[in-house]
Amino acid sequence: MDAYVTVDIGGTHIRAATFLRDSTQPIKHQRTSTHSADGALLDRISTLIETVWPEKEKVKAISVASPGPLDPKSGVILATPNIPEWRDFPLGPKLADRFGVPVYIDNDANLAALGEWRYGAGKGYHDVLYLTISTGIGGGVIVNDQLLRGARGMGAELGHVTVLPDGPLCSCGQPGHLEALASGPAIVRFVREQLAAGAQSALKANPGLTARQIAEAAGQGDALARQAFQQAGEYLGLALASLIHIFDPSIVIFGGGVSQSGRLLFDPMKASLRKYIFHPAFLNNLAIKTAALGDDAGLLGALALAKMALKY
Amino acid sequence: MDAYVTVDIGGTHIRAATFLRDSTQPIKHQRTSTHSADGALLDRISTLIETVWPEKEKVKAISVASPGPLDPKSGVILATPNIPEWRDFPLGPKLADRFGVPVYIDNDANLAALGEWRYGAGKGYHDVLYLTISTGIGGGVIVNDQLLRGARGMGAELGHVTVLPDGPLCSCGQPGHLEALASGPAIVRFVREQLAAGAQSALKANPGLTARQIAEAAGQGDALARQAFQQAGEYLGLALASLIHIFDPSIVIFGGGVSQSGRLLFDPMKASLRKYIFHPAFLNNLAIKTAALGDDAGLLGALALAKMALKY
Repeated sequence: MDAYVTVDIGGTHIRAATFLRDSTQPIKHQRTSTHSADGALLDRISTLIETVWPEKEKVKAISVASPGPLDPKSGVILATPNIPEWRDFPLGPKLADRFGVPVYIDNDANLAALGEWRYGAGKGYHDVLYLTISTGIGGGVIVNDQLLRGARGMGAELGHVTVLPDGPLCSCGQPGHLEALASGPAIVRFVREQLAAGAQSALKANPGLTARQIAEAAGQGDALARQAFQQAGEYLGLALASLIHIFDPSIVIFGGGVSQSGRLLFDPMKASLRKYIFHPAFLNNLAIKTAALGDDAGLLGALALAKMALKY
Repeated sequence: MDAYVTVDIGGTHIRAATFLRDSTQPIKHQRTSTHSADGALLDRISTLIETVWPEKEKVKAISVASPGPLDPKSGVILATPNIPEWRDFPLGPKLADRFGVPVYIDNDANLAALGEWRYGAGKGYHDVLYLTISTGIGGGVIVNDQLLRGARGMGAELGHVTVLPDGPLCSCGQPGHLEALASGPAIVRFVREQLAAGAQSALKANPGLTARQIAEAAGQGDALARQAFQQAGEYLGLALASLIHIFDPSIVIFGGGVSQSGRLLFDPMKASLRKYIFHPAFLNNLAIKTAALGDDAGLLGALALAKMALKY
């Protein structure tokens, strides 16, 4: 039976899993640390792939979810903040040489969107807007059952849309991007700034302050913590209104750790979305859901990528 | 030989033209006023279609470029500011009944984008961002050789993205949309406001002041007029940076009357785009062009729509 080998290169771990053609349950899976002194990253990924390689089944393809930016056509990783030694690194060609099968690569947010569309919260929908909110804000878009890639494979950078031209600087250096207003670090920065300005709160400006701790404080009624999520949700709703005017999706899916803060973020987001949508018809039958695949979104997105490329 | 009948419903005129399958030169064309006391609009459109109906050739389809919002799947015009009597009006089904051929409908900006992509400035490109700047700002997007429609056919409303959350009100009622900052009326409003505040200028706040007059004054060195285009261009560049982060197009095409003001608008737009783009790779080989089809974009877009629907 045909098999598909998938790899998900995450910030802390790299995972690999092998699927048979009609299943989303892996027959083998394995993981390793992304950062290790124990050999070059490419060699460790290759070893991981060998570990999950099936004994009998014929492997049709290897597919990889990687942090970007990258070029999905050539399989070259252009640059990724987390892996400085990979700059213009031809990961796809190198793996194809080594294993003798086609290799497909796309960025993690795109593949999470693809995975959720084919196997998760977006199953059965044709126009999907996916946002992952954690340390950064990433995006993936399905337009009429096709993954939006763009001419250079660099599209769907939904965290890097300007929401507030005079707003705080984004990790990318530009002012007022959505990522600078509604990601985990943006929520933490707001709390720090308010504490420094003398705001009362149970929270302390300790170096390890996290969005999760702020969510917990908000759950216990802390006013500053609630305000931080209120503001992030309002900006998220404002940006989402523009994205809906652009894509007119049938479903919006939220992934990433910050999305797990639930109504704390989504109540103000929805109120803001209703306020800023310019025609109510855009909200007719618009589903808003949280991601269903959890940590497996990258692997299952890579599986979907290979199957679509091979038209299975 | 097969023929295609196309209709373009504009603000002042309705045009119809018939094309043979391998040509973009119409064998017949005719136009009439959009507004007239001489019978219902649908009847006048039907008469116009009869006028251009070919004697011998077999008509494969009628296709219509209409102001929106409309539902391209059902052919129903939901509402259009310019034609108040058409509310939830089943234009497609009515024409299909009357003429016994398939009828395809989409909104004017989408079809102008489609026309430019297939026959005009965007020929040979696969990922096209089209913006028309005139009384309003409309958009059309080609993603990997497919027209972006959205789940309800309401996507690509690129004039209705928020650029400045505390900015002036848009015609749609929302604050700070691109249309409220860079359309013709937005440029006029800025000049009026500055004149009212005492700015020196050769321009007078007469009721008929137009963006074209302001462009002419700018060409003669009027500082206020130049400032108005400078500001509109800057906002346009800011919005375009976000749209490029979202779509990663290979070409951006500008249509509409205000685009004909040339470098007055595009020099500040390009400077602003370079400032706000978050990675220079997005600008590699990015073509920026003005539309090539002029007033024929709607008819040729409708022609492209019918041919694509019929897979020719």
